[in-house]
Amino acid sequence: MKFSAKRFFLGLLSLVGSVALAACGNLQNADLSGSDTSTSTSNKSASYQITGNTDGTQYSALLTDGKYKVSTSRGLTVDQNSNAFNLASFESGLTTISKGTFSPEKYAFQEGQYISRSTANSWLKRESSTNEEGLNPKDNGSTEPDKRAPIYLQEILEQDFLERTSTSYKIAGVTIGLGLNEIDYYQKVQYGATFKTTISQAEREKQGKEMATKILARLRKKKELANATIVFGLYKQAANDSLVGGTYFATAVSKSGTTISEWKTLNQENGVLPVVNNQKAINDGDADSFSNFKTKIQSFFPNLSGVTAQTHYENGTLQGMKIKISTQFFGVNEIQSFTQYVDTAAKRYLPANIPIEITISSVEGIQSFLSRESGDKDFYTHVFSSY
Amino acid sequence: MKFSAKRFFLGLLSLVGSVALAACGNLQNADLSGSDTSTSTSNKSASYQITGNTDGTQYSALLTDGKYKVSTSRGLTVDQNSNAFNLASFESGLTTISKGTFSPEKYAFQEGQYISRSTANSWLKRESSTNEEGLNPKDNGSTEPDKRAPIYLQEILEQDFLERTSTSYKIAGVTIGLGLNEIDYYQKVQYGATFKTTISQAEREKQGKEMATKILARLRKKKELANATIVFGLYKQAANDSLVGGTYFATAVSKSGTTISEWKTLNQENGVLPVVNNQKAINDGDADSFSNFKTKIQSFFPNLSGVTAQTHYENGTLQGMKIKISTQFFGVNEIQSFTQYVDTAAKRYLPANIPIEITISSVEGIQSFLSRESGDKDFYTHVFSSY
Repeated sequence: MKFSAKRFFLGLLSLVGSVALAACGNLQNADLSGSDTSTSTSNKSASYQITGNTDGTQYSALLTDGKYKVSTSRGLTVDQNSNAFNLASFESGLTTISKGTFSPEKYAFQEGQYISRSTANSWLKRESSTNEEGLNPKDNGSTEPDKRAPIYLQEILEQDFLERTSTSYKIAGVTIGLGLNEIDYYQKVQYGATFKTTISQAEREKQGKEMATKILARLRKKKELANATIVFGLYKQAANDSLVGGTYFATAVSKSGTTISEWKTLNQENGVLPVVNNQKAINDGDADSFSNFKTKIQSFFPNLSGVTAQTHYENGTLQGMKIKISTQFFGVNEIQSFTQYVDTAAKRYLPANIPIEITISSVEGIQSFLSRESGDKDFYTHVFSSY
Repeated sequence: MKFSAKRFFLGLLSLVGSVALAACGNLQNADLSGSDTSTSTSNKSASYQITGNTDGTQYSALLTDGKYKVSTSRGLTVDQNSNAFNLASFESGLTTISKGTFSPEKYAFQEGQYISRSTANSWLKRESSTNEEGLNPKDNGSTEPDKRAPIYLQEILEQDFLERTSTSYKIAGVTIGLGLNEIDYYQKVQYGATFKTTISQAEREKQGKEMATKILARLRKKKELANATIVFGLYKQAANDSLVGGTYFATAVSKSGTTISEWKTLNQENGVLPVVNNQKAINDGDADSFSNFKTKIQSFFPNLSGVTAQTHYENGTLQGMKIKISTQFFGVNEIQSFTQYVDTAAKRYLPANIPIEITISSVEGIQSFLSRESGDKDFYTHVFSSY
């Protein structure tokens, strides 16, 4: 069986749809404010609530019958060997794409409810006589890396967007993310050595666009989605040993019909600092800034283990950093003192005007964190504590 | 050997002195602002820096020769069977006491440097012919819980406070915390069963005050501390199986001399919600508020494991809550959605006007957190993410 169980489970896991948050702050969306009084809907006699008010940047999530509505394909086991960063960035990147079409001020989120567990299972498998719906290619019999037909599609993710009506919410559109492999890992024999087929960007893009068109036609057959807005995002899975997740490389919007008339190219890149294995940094200036920051804080505190960063670029410009600092500290006040010092150093050395998240952890877990939103000058800092 | 190695190490661990942070925010302390340019001191030809500017509520820490100065007794192993909450609240509680005498706007913090590793070792042991400095009582030969002489003093913690001079910092005072047992755990034979001696509040207070007086006389003999302000805090260690740390019950300030003229009683209490083992909540109204919050969020999200809180009371009034929520979530957007809902529920159900920290964790560690400072109405929320 070429289609491994681990790929199958990984694919299904990601079909857990999506819903999002509103952080603290301004309530700009009066339409969504009736969060706690249940409202009967006209068509299904269900009651609707949302998780809270949106601040306009994050979605409110729709709840049904007083509960959070999980996807039907929730709860399957994730393969621990795969890259957890892919899971996170696949989902958060799709949410970002969704916001381009479905404004959080107008639409509520719901985990994907239209692609069922068995459907996702079937789509992620290879096409075969017993699985005509399979989106991955038929097995051509070869097990050679360059001759076999690789598994292109690794994950599918559906997000639903609902519009408020006078008494309830109705579906307005869905976003579908397709996670496409850069490297397809496979075994020639069960439990055997792992081999790799590397897939070119051109081939990945071609395959992804064809799959999206097939999915569009299938979704249009569903009555609720016949006239809904359907958005696609094509995502390149990072390699299993990558220290950062993959990125979206194309997106398209279908307002109606079964053809996708226009694909928009997304120029995203993720990186890691400090660079390893003589790789080149995406941007030397940003790498230097991080290096100065790292040197500064390591020179001050003797017990510091590691300082690493994930970076995200769009069109060549740094969009944000996630910095992880590992310590061997255990004292409450030493952590507080260190957090203060990191705050000082971050303001002085790290690139300005981008969102930055810094977590400081010991073997016992997170000890403190600092966060700066886009456009802010100061970091919010918090040291975790107990009584 | 009655004085167990684990107690010994635990005691030493806590001698790691202290230093603290300034969070983000207003810089009110111009005196401490020269943080990055090293200033030579007149007496030791060392250079001084601080970790950052204080916001007036937290200390800046003094750094020496460009490095964070750890206590000489740092790095010893903590006994994993002991209560980690004690370690944290012993230290953070002492910092709170210190602020009463040494304002963060005027003084910088430094880990304890005056009680050496060997001295702490000696003080924490029993008094004996070979250890005359021991603050714990002589072994009376009995191993019966009610007849033996228990170990009263479990931990010592020193914090140093420095005043800015024209060119450097000089010691202005120290704070000494004494961690005193409510229950002394002991073995009659090595590796044998654990027995307990329970110590009354009256006896703990009497012993703690006598020890403080002895320590005061010893510290006054050190030239640098002869005229320094010396503050004491007496702390009741929580039992090993407690889900919350202990509390300080008395404090005193010595401006000069070797007598402590006045002890101030501190009326602090820590609790856990929901209450367990048919215990009574410290305050029924607060327990009801928490229960409503817990019920509300558990009814909404099917995959929620646990919701617990630590509470801290002073003079019978709730001073803060630390809430831990465990989930089985793994989706980015589900965590965001849940965080938004917790925000809504916390504002509606939890007691107003007190600081509250809420962490949401899965088996993979912290996923998001919410924090409200004293006096604030809204929670700051943050969902951790990666690229």
